[in-house]
Amino acid sequence: MDAAEFRRRGKEMVDHVADYLEKIEERPVYPDVEPGYLRSLIPTEAPVEPDSYEDIMKDVERVIMPGITHWHSPNFFAYFPAASSYPAMLADMLCSAIGCIGFSWAASPACTELETVMLDWLGKMLQLPECFLAGTHGHGGGVIQGTASEATLVSLLAARCKAIRRVQLLDPKKSEAEILSKLVAYTSEQAHSSVERAALIGAVMMKKVPTDSLYAVRGEMLKKILEEDKAAGLIPFYFCATLGTTPSCAFDHIADLGPLCNQENMWMHIDAAYAGSAFICPEFRPLLNGVEYADSFNFNPHKWMLINFDCSAMWVKKRTDIIGAFKMEPLYLKHENQESGKTFFGLKLSQSIPLGRRFRSLKMWFVFRMYGLQGLQAHIRKQVGLAKEFESLVRADKRFEICAPVVMGLVCFRLKGTNELNQSLLKKITKSREIHLVPCQLSGSFVLRLAICSRSTEFRHIQQAWQHITQLAFELLNKNEKACTFQI
Amino acid sequence: MDAAEFRRRGKEMVDHVADYLEKIEERPVYPDVEPGYLRSLIPTEAPVEPDSYEDIMKDVERVIMPGITHWHSPNFFAYFPAASSYPAMLADMLCSAIGCIGFSWAASPACTELETVMLDWLGKMLQLPECFLAGTHGHGGGVIQGTASEATLVSLLAARCKAIRRVQLLDPKKSEAEILSKLVAYTSEQAHSSVERAALIGAVMMKKVPTDSLYAVRGEMLKKILEEDKAAGLIPFYFCATLGTTPSCAFDHIADLGPLCNQENMWMHIDAAYAGSAFICPEFRPLLNGVEYADSFNFNPHKWMLINFDCSAMWVKKRTDIIGAFKMEPLYLKHENQESGKTFFGLKLSQSIPLGRRFRSLKMWFVFRMYGLQGLQAHIRKQVGLAKEFESLVRADKRFEICAPVVMGLVCFRLKGTNELNQSLLKKITKSREIHLVPCQLSGSFVLRLAICSRSTEFRHIQQAWQHITQLAFELLNKNEKACTFQI
Repeated sequence: MDAAEFRRRGKEMVDHVADYLEKIEERPVYPDVEPGYLRSLIPTEAPVEPDSYEDIMKDVERVIMPGITHWHSPNFFAYFPAASSYPAMLADMLCSAIGCIGFSWAASPACTELETVMLDWLGKMLQLPECFLAGTHGHGGGVIQGTASEATLVSLLAARCKAIRRVQLLDPKKSEAEILSKLVAYTSEQAHSSVERAALIGAVMMKKVPTDSLYAVRGEMLKKILEEDKAAGLIPFYFCATLGTTPSCAFDHIADLGPLCNQENMWMHIDAAYAGSAFICPEFRPLLNGVEYADSFNFNPHKWMLINFDCSAMWVKKRTDIIGAFKMEPLYLKHENQESGKTFFGLKLSQSIPLGRRFRSLKMWFVFRMYGLQGLQAHIRKQVGLAKEFESLVRADKRFEICAPVVMGLVCFRLKGTNELNQSLLKKITKSREIHLVPCQLSGSFVLRLAICSRSTEFRHIQQAWQHITQLAFELLNKNEKACTFQI
Repeated sequence: MDAAEFRRRGKEMVDHVADYLEKIEERPVYPDVEPGYLRSLIPTEAPVEPDSYEDIMKDVERVIMPGITHWHSPNFFAYFPAASSYPAMLADMLCSAIGCIGFSWAASPACTELETVMLDWLGKMLQLPECFLAGTHGHGGGVIQGTASEATLVSLLAARCKAIRRVQLLDPKKSEAEILSKLVAYTSEQAHSSVERAALIGAVMMKKVPTDSLYAVRGEMLKKILEEDKAAGLIPFYFCATLGTTPSCAFDHIADLGPLCNQENMWMHIDAAYAGSAFICPEFRPLLNGVEYADSFNFNPHKWMLINFDCSAMWVKKRTDIIGAFKMEPLYLKHENQESGKTFFGLKLSQSIPLGRRFRSLKMWFVFRMYGLQGLQAHIRKQVGLAKEFESLVRADKRFEICAPVVMGLVCFRLKGTNELNQSLLKKITKSREIHLVPCQLSGSFVLRLAICSRSTEFRHIQQAWQHITQLAFELLNKNEKACTFQI
């Protein structure tokens, strides 16, 4: 395919993309396929000679679309949102064309520098304390990671490195292995599974801290465990706080937890993967109070800030903590400007797990400028408003209950009754393929999660979703009642 | 920006992308900016109200382009290639639109399934042993990682988990910490820095194995160290072989190393990040002989197979080895089909460091079908041919020497003489900005690396590059000679 053909096919693809998104509501949100469905629809080997482009595009509809869960359908309410916007897509086209691999400053200065400045822009939108910004002389700064899982892992590894050095400084006879076996990381019992996985990768113990009735960790809960563990000779070194947990969007009390971590010489990382985007709105910013005690902070603009995946923003107070944990410099990656005192470009490669990285900050630049801060705030507020509307609908129906405070765009609810009943309801919902939800577990209860996800979700979709859910619930309760009647 | 405006701007962007790539040769390949150049060119904060799209596109030329190292210029010969093709870009546009996050089968069945089948297609192109393919009943299979660094890390972590279990089975009293402190991973002294970094992350010791005169590890070299280490009570558990090292594209002798690793119960991972693409050509396939002994194999189609970054292909013989090392299953990620015996979809999330993943297999599908196996082979052969042409030019000039065998698209060469002389030559090359190279170190010598990178590099670019290099060398040698004359 040469440039001339790309001009033609590319323009067709632009229309294809716009058509897909404009008409997405007409498609069932969840696919009706069995595992393994795809293999039988395509050849067992790659073609030796080229296929035609027309055939490929026909196969997109024939092979791919039947197996797609449509994340951008206004009827998709599962997991958390995956951001999507036209400006981000345009920026990604440009990113593909430039196609630089930004593992050092020299590999493409604009790629490294725009990233640093965009993370400063974003940090200012969130009103992060100055110490997290790079500026021209700061010790802190931001970097784009692929996912929150990577940010958690990077912070845990940096904390591990720092803790080992600190203990060895006090007691040089202690071996690294010995120290490692005593290190303990902590996180909420409600934290994302990737936090536990980071500890598994880093070969350190991790303990789950119990939460209060609102599924949040409080200072006293962590304090209690720390006392026990220190008395047992263990070395607490890391706490991962969550702002906006995956099951119910609960907020750990970082303003209490932060001073405790500081006092105990523990690294505090804050994972605000979903909720972080909302902190650009003054009314939500108080939930971030206490961030000044943290060593690192992360959230995913690719969830709720209209920047297509992947774009996970991570800030650290001391870049040297991260860089020191990973530094490797083979000759083929060295370049003249990397030791420059006034910037920290060129050391980027040390701040993420993968070495290669795309020019992801272009997406941030396009989205921030095409929406403006006001446009981004409006997006957040609209989606929180829709969640509140849904909450009202649920609260007005006595057969249902709300299971956790609705703070942002997530509503946790269930039919009053057994877990089996709610499992049956979810099965019916999934099978109908009109809307798509996933469950969570809260205090032993099987709970349905409705997250406002798509940029195109409007009030009418919320109403329809609720009508649909209540209709299925009616059928279910009716059937159960009949079954009971029969039994009698 | 609504769909209508996206249709207009998207088509403009398609032309912008085609224009950029068609005229890329007119731009200096390497930027002339100082660290920190970008910050002063843009505002210090994001706009509150939207900017105009026209202004953003003007800024792409004003702010971004001056700081770009043009990886797709035919005059870019640095590092290794970063793949780029129009079909991959089209697929990525579609990927952005679908915007699903493929962390489980249910999150988008097509995303998980196409990936599995594409890795089978690609495995067959490489003539990988059947045991590495998923098929419908296989125990092996492939997965797309972001980078080779991630693949190395994942393999090392799986090997670590397996080794700990094995040792504990024999000696249940040994603690995990004790075993961990005895585990040793090995790799070539020529291996990529990310291998050492994987060991650092995994908290295990790593030792570098010396290489022969062609910079390759041989069986006897590893065997010698293993004997010493076992005698010292250490537990060798992992060897990362490299096919196509970064400095000189050397090939470890995996057909000797493999049986040794098998015999010693060590995991053998093969990192063929760059060279792997060439194994689709029968004339290069013998270099992969011995892969049958490996536990995992990885290469980057995003380097040399025309699939835009990121797309790193990794195969394992036993999926359960990888899955077992990471398995975590919170309720919000569970779904009905994940325990299905006939597929391994839904367990994908356990096979990579990040949880979220884009629909990257679409790029593979588009590229494989638009080029066909023959087209991909032709691309590899053309670029190897250009490297051979450059080698001939160097060999014909008595002032220069070739420093390592030219097997694929990389030529390592230098001026006969001191390292300082060659450093000066590279400085002149970088400063002139007509071509771009990076150095490496081989046996203590400072060596220039010329890698055939861009899809648009032709013989004339090779000739021009050589003329340019010899002209700068002439100036340098002449100046040095004059300096010498003066001294006399």
